[in-house]
Amino acid sequence: MDSRTGLPVVGIVGGGQLARMTHQAAIALGQSLRVMAASADDGAALVAADTLVGHHTDLDALRRFAKDCDVVTFDHEHVPGEHIRALAAEGVVLRPGADALRFAQDKRAMRERLGELGVPVPAWRPVASAAEIGDFAAEVGGPPVVAKAIRGGYDGRGVWVLAEPGDADRLVTAGVELIVEEAVRLRRELAVMVARSPWGQVAAYPVVETVQRDGICVEVLAPAPHLAPDVAVRAQRLAIRVATELDVIGVLAVELFETGAGELVVNELAMRPHNSGHWTIEGARTSQFEQHLRAVLDYPLGETVTTAPAVAMANVLGGRTDGMGLDERLHHVFAADPGVRVHLYGKAVRPGRKIGHVTALGSDMDTVRDRARKAARLLSEGEVDG
Amino acid sequence: MDSRTGLPVVGIVGGGQLARMTHQAAIALGQSLRVMAASADDGAALVAADTLVGHHTDLDALRRFAKDCDVVTFDHEHVPGEHIRALAAEGVVLRPGADALRFAQDKRAMRERLGELGVPVPAWRPVASAAEIGDFAAEVGGPPVVAKAIRGGYDGRGVWVLAEPGDADRLVTAGVELIVEEAVRLRRELAVMVARSPWGQVAAYPVVETVQRDGICVEVLAPAPHLAPDVAVRAQRLAIRVATELDVIGVLAVELFETGAGELVVNELAMRPHNSGHWTIEGARTSQFEQHLRAVLDYPLGETVTTAPAVAMANVLGGRTDGMGLDERLHHVFAADPGVRVHLYGKAVRPGRKIGHVTALGSDMDTVRDRARKAARLLSEGEVDG
Repeated sequence: MDSRTGLPVVGIVGGGQLARMTHQAAIALGQSLRVMAASADDGAALVAADTLVGHHTDLDALRRFAKDCDVVTFDHEHVPGEHIRALAAEGVVLRPGADALRFAQDKRAMRERLGELGVPVPAWRPVASAAEIGDFAAEVGGPPVVAKAIRGGYDGRGVWVLAEPGDADRLVTAGVELIVEEAVRLRRELAVMVARSPWGQVAAYPVVETVQRDGICVEVLAPAPHLAPDVAVRAQRLAIRVATELDVIGVLAVELFETGAGELVVNELAMRPHNSGHWTIEGARTSQFEQHLRAVLDYPLGETVTTAPAVAMANVLGGRTDGMGLDERLHHVFAADPGVRVHLYGKAVRPGRKIGHVTALGSDMDTVRDRARKAARLLSEGEVDG
Repeated sequence: MDSRTGLPVVGIVGGGQLARMTHQAAIALGQSLRVMAASADDGAALVAADTLVGHHTDLDALRRFAKDCDVVTFDHEHVPGEHIRALAAEGVVLRPGADALRFAQDKRAMRERLGELGVPVPAWRPVASAAEIGDFAAEVGGPPVVAKAIRGGYDGRGVWVLAEPGDADRLVTAGVELIVEEAVRLRRELAVMVARSPWGQVAAYPVVETVQRDGICVEVLAPAPHLAPDVAVRAQRLAIRVATELDVIGVLAVELFETGAGELVVNELAMRPHNSGHWTIEGARTSQFEQHLRAVLDYPLGETVTTAPAVAMANVLGGRTDGMGLDERLHHVFAADPGVRVHLYGKAVRPGRKIGHVTALGSDMDTVRDRARKAARLLSEGEVDG
């Protein structure tokens, strides 16, 4: 407990942009978030007063970190489950817990569990050879099929679209544990975020459309344009059910495929603030970051209503590093659009790396999407859209 | 310059809640704000990674602090003008500069300068004895008249309403430098905030109503209810003119009296984020804290439009310290109103001390005002309105 304020102390393992933005939200709640960062240069370590540098696979470092925390949460899924269980056995409060987190860490376990719950997932199978992939592809009418590493993937890493089963030879040889899935014929990708508290309260945000390029989320449109109201309700109910059945504490992002027929199929789960929820900082009454904190603190959850009819978020990916510096780019972005909201993560620019995001709010989705895209492109490339 | 991002480094002298909330805004701009705090327990020091503990009257500490900053700004007006001038002479970029800040530090200088500009101010006079106060009171049809310390007052401190000129004897004897002013017959108090950049861009926020109790701001209503449009424009023009004539860089809060006849009289100036602008965090597209940073960084300024038709901010003053702790109070506030926005400053509760604020947004001013007031009272007193 913080002796000055009497408020519980929250620690977050991982010092990336999610921890950085969670810290911003924590400040308003009177908190001084503790951050365990792998490096003193991590985005959150640069802005939080109380940082321990240590690796999330180092159980002793985790112990030292957790000692002064009333509750520990996570910026990513990479803390080993056995470490989380060891800390819990020693009395540390971790939210979400190891039993829930397992389904965000292990795609095979997630697919199995969702299948048991009757939640629609793509046809899938664990595989250990190119031959097994070939058999699966023949059954589902592929190739292409999609191979996924059971552990450790993110932002398109750990996912491979296989035109030929033999394309997986390299992965199988390298000993990557894989599942293979049908390539869903999708109309688009959607995401729905819910938060759940230990007390059992659940709150769902409006369903959003996510736009990917090369497996990386580039845009989020909130609410998802032209989404049939019954499909939106189905998506929210599905996410609430998953959060409840999996005993998730904190926010849960459910990434979905919408098929041409209006069917919903679960693609991925994340049990932490998620790129698909960055729009909530300005676009919803309560941001996903504050909501996550409220959930892990077992505070009543905040309103999830949107603050504008149309909200578009565009990621800023590291692009050109020559020419205009980031400071000059910022000048141009603000001069061109005084209403766009910019969020930078304190990172050095590297091609393809998420270094920030921008959000535009208004009454017309096409307009706000165009504004967000232009600002993001200017920050990425140092030039305006051609 | 930040070698990782290529962004300029901003330092802020003073570690109170204004610096704390400026740090929140700085994070989004990719900044890692440097904070010079008088104590490691100051609100901003608790949440910022890069804090130097030192006193704002210590020129050597200011030098050490400024050394790694591209621009230095302020959380309060208490840095001595001669220190600011000394640093500027050594090449430090300070925004606002000493020539502008003087008018926020010295009420006599401010009144004189505004008078020269033809900006309406209350009838006033510098005084050095109870007799002089008596003469002034007789001229303006008082008592009561209002005595103000020329330097160092804030939040009602340094302001005395004198029913009898002799009530000032104690002040005069104590050597407090005073001005005395007529007690303006006011309908209400208004405030208008503008930001101005070195390049000369100016942006004004909507005019707000401020409600004081015992000289302390307790509520802010944005936009000011039932304000005649021509009076609002006059107030904004007046603030823009003052910012420009005084060469203010950063935000400037102009506190005004509105008389029954719709006249506007300037009460106070503040050249920093101000309590009358806290509503902008959620209630305007660009918060006063980001706007201040954009101005001191010479970035183009952000949109100042409101995000909801009615916004009410209520200060949380330290009240009862027995009974329910702050953590339990937060539970009740969030349970009672999931839409209210809470901002806590990381301070220990002391009676009358500003420990946070709450903001409610909606379509009806009476409703949002009631919501903000109830939430603030619950956080202050640990009990709901009777």
